[in-house]
Amino acid sequence: MDIYNFAKDLIVEAGQFIEKRMLESFHVDSKSNPDDLVTDVDRETEQFLSQRISEQYPTHRIIGEEGQGHDVHDNKGVLWIIDPIDGTLNFVHQSENFAISIGIFIDGQPYCGLIYDCMKADLYHAKYKEGAFLNNVPLEKAKEVPLSRSLIAMNPKRFLNERIRTPFFSIMSKSRSVRSYGSAALEFTMLARGQISALLFFRLHPWDYAGGVILTNELGYKTSNVFGQDLPLFGTTSVIAGNPLIHQELLAYFENDKDLKSLHDETHNL
Amino acid sequence: MDIYNFAKDLIVEAGQFIEKRMLESFHVDSKSNPDDLVTDVDRETEQFLSQRISEQYPTHRIIGEEGQGHDVHDNKGVLWIIDPIDGTLNFVHQSENFAISIGIFIDGQPYCGLIYDCMKADLYHAKYKEGAFLNNVPLEKAKEVPLSRSLIAMNPKRFLNERIRTPFFSIMSKSRSVRSYGSAALEFTMLARGQISALLFFRLHPWDYAGGVILTNELGYKTSNVFGQDLPLFGTTSVIAGNPLIHQELLAYFENDKDLKSLHDETHNL
Repeated sequence: MDIYNFAKDLIVEAGQFIEKRMLESFHVDSKSNPDDLVTDVDRETEQFLSQRISEQYPTHRIIGEEGQGHDVHDNKGVLWIIDPIDGTLNFVHQSENFAISIGIFIDGQPYCGLIYDCMKADLYHAKYKEGAFLNNVPLEKAKEVPLSRSLIAMNPKRFLNERIRTPFFSIMSKSRSVRSYGSAALEFTMLARGQISALLFFRLHPWDYAGGVILTNELGYKTSNVFGQDLPLFGTTSVIAGNPLIHQELLAYFENDKDLKSLHDETHNL
Repeated sequence: MDIYNFAKDLIVEAGQFIEKRMLESFHVDSKSNPDDLVTDVDRETEQFLSQRISEQYPTHRIIGEEGQGHDVHDNKGVLWIIDPIDGTLNFVHQSENFAISIGIFIDGQPYCGLIYDCMKADLYHAKYKEGAFLNNVPLEKAKEVPLSRSLIAMNPKRFLNERIRTPFFSIMSKSRSVRSYGSAALEFTMLARGQISALLFFRLHPWDYAGGVILTNELGYKTSNVFGQDLPLFGTTSVIAGNPLIHQELLAYFENDKDLKSLHDETHNL
């Protein structure tokens, strides 16, 4: 079995682990702030994934949201970037609308991306240059829908930051409407299905987008930070993902904002 | 069969009508502005509902989003307030995440409320003082969750209105996070399931909330406009719905805003 097929089986098993674990009680703690939650289930699921990957592939390295992976600072060899539960607030409040996300890179190049919506048993997966699928059904290539005819996903709480508000408000105003689902991974799957035309975020980590970027790039969607630069495998960043037309349109809202660029380059954390 | 059981059967039939109709092509037009869409399917589904209601109950009166009901200005007798597709943008872009909503009032008093998520085949229904259900399972009574530990639903596009932005930003800042799903009816069902703790909207019409208000009131959730007044059966209004604790908390963000109140009373259309 190749790594791709191993990963597909593994992510479904991890989903079953979560579903079973949800039937028991679990603790909820906060991380960086009172609204940034983590549960026992996030940690245990990351441990489950890490352990299974290490047993099968002792040389592979892992970066995970809950920090149970390796201390990785370069992109050599096979690198798994995993989020055991993307959308922890939804997990806690809604018992659905969260996903497991996995992106695998070999020497820094995309190899495969997987997102599993375990409550719907929907597996989104793509191997580089071999197509992208929802379960066993091929997903359609990106269509060129302009911003003025689009639904776009954003996190409205970022509007509280005045530096971001101006471009966000202009974009929102031009769009048909804004959606906010609380899981970047699931928003990437909605992009992959053409249900939204773009997503636009600040302060994402690689585990939020690694799987989604490989999935959507495979379908012809473009991804970058808001200044058009490639998304890093380490650190935090802004993210724009969309069809090629809207991606260009969205970049234009940021390209002349030199102050925002300086701030973005310094902190990566607007 | 009483009116409640007739309505339950009818809304499911209307959902099957929509599902079938989606397989054929349909026209999309805009109404008040380019982002306010209506399709043939909205109109045909309202016609389907109106016709069936009038055949069964010739004396009942109907208010529908697409204007195929009666010209009603008083609340005498049995009044059906119906939205054939709440979340038309989602219907057009996502082929899911929309709902049929029905609220029935007798001499202005709530009689029953129904919301049908036809793509999930989930029927939410409540008869006044007889409990609220998802399909055949009773829904749990409202729990008192404070704003600081809540997900709340809003439409971020309303932030573009400066008069609304200030209280909305304060509320958003205090909340755990904001969600935006693009269908008030479905957001009422998420409130009824405890998946969000409140919803807060401006510019809603009775067909957006009639079913949802009866459903959630039955579970102990409070509903009013942002100034604590009862929601009207005619015209447009702001809407706050939430558990009793968060409902009180949210009203406090508006109660001293006399300018906003004047504007709200004059236009009902901020």
